[in-house]
Amino acid sequence: MNSFMLQAVNEAFCGVKQNHGGPFGAVVVKSGKIIAKAHNTVLRSNDPTAHAEVNAIRKASKKLSTFDLSECEIYTTCMPCPMCLGAIKWANIKTVYYGATSKDADAIGFRDEDFYEKEFLEFKQMQRAECLKPFEAWSAKEDKVTY
Amino acid sequence: MNSFMLQAVNEAFCGVKQNHGGPFGAVVVKSGKIIAKAHNTVLRSNDPTAHAEVNAIRKASKKLSTFDLSECEIYTTCMPCPMCLGAIKWANIKTVYYGATSKDADAIGFRDEDFYEKEFLEFKQMQRAECLKPFEAWSAKEDKVTY
Repeated sequence: MNSFMLQAVNEAFCGVKQNHGGPFGAVVVKSGKIIAKAHNTVLRSNDPTAHAEVNAIRKASKKLSTFDLSECEIYTTCMPCPMCLGAIKWANIKTVYYGATSKDADAIGFRDEDFYEKEFLEFKQMQRAECLKPFEAWSAKEDKVTY
Repeated sequence: MNSFMLQAVNEAFCGVKQNHGGPFGAVVVKSGKIIAKAHNTVLRSNDPTAHAEVNAIRKASKKLSTFDLSECEIYTTCMPCPMCLGAIKWANIKTVYYGATSKDADAIGFRDEDFYEKEFLEFKQMQRAECLKPFEAWSAKEDKVTY
């Protein structure tokens, strides 16, 4: 078995055993070395964003002192949900190795497929003009860092 | 101006002034009271996931000691990116009040529209069978909490 995916699976087991969250693990790899590994901690930390991939990206970014993980790859035990896919894209990671599918996650009670297929949020736009003012302040900054 | 959106705009300005990250702010509200407010801190914390909405959800969850924010609403100065939308859905928030659009964000150099419209990640599936083993362990747990 691929050693990176093995570590991700071990993380997933670790989370289940400790009741930290769902059975998911992820590993961030750079130049053939593991930078960070993590499992889902939604339950332990009462944080709905604490999925394995998000946790691994946060750890890797902290370790490398950069929000730009463009030289990294991620190994995750399950196809990332839309939140995690977004996190992976913002981190500039280009390649995602995954094992189980979103349907597999749904089969054990998670909602990943719903998130891909249904829109159940209500959106209400308001006060765009006021919200654009911080955008103008940002655009006018000469020392801004783009990401 | 709506007082919650005003607070979100103030947060956005706060982030720009301190060079914490992009010009975005968000507020989580429950029963007419602000539970948490936050701005983007991607640059300060070197965390690509530290968008205003994610930060506000993390703070609100911590404050309420639950990953379930189903009785909350979120006010955000800009239409949430796919990562933040995912976080909002996992938090069970049902209503999103937003000001600026993704196109407005793109106009000042962000990539939100790309994230909605293009797929530039490479996906490689591997070792599904091994990755399903933690799923089986989860399914067999009698004390599991579903989320």
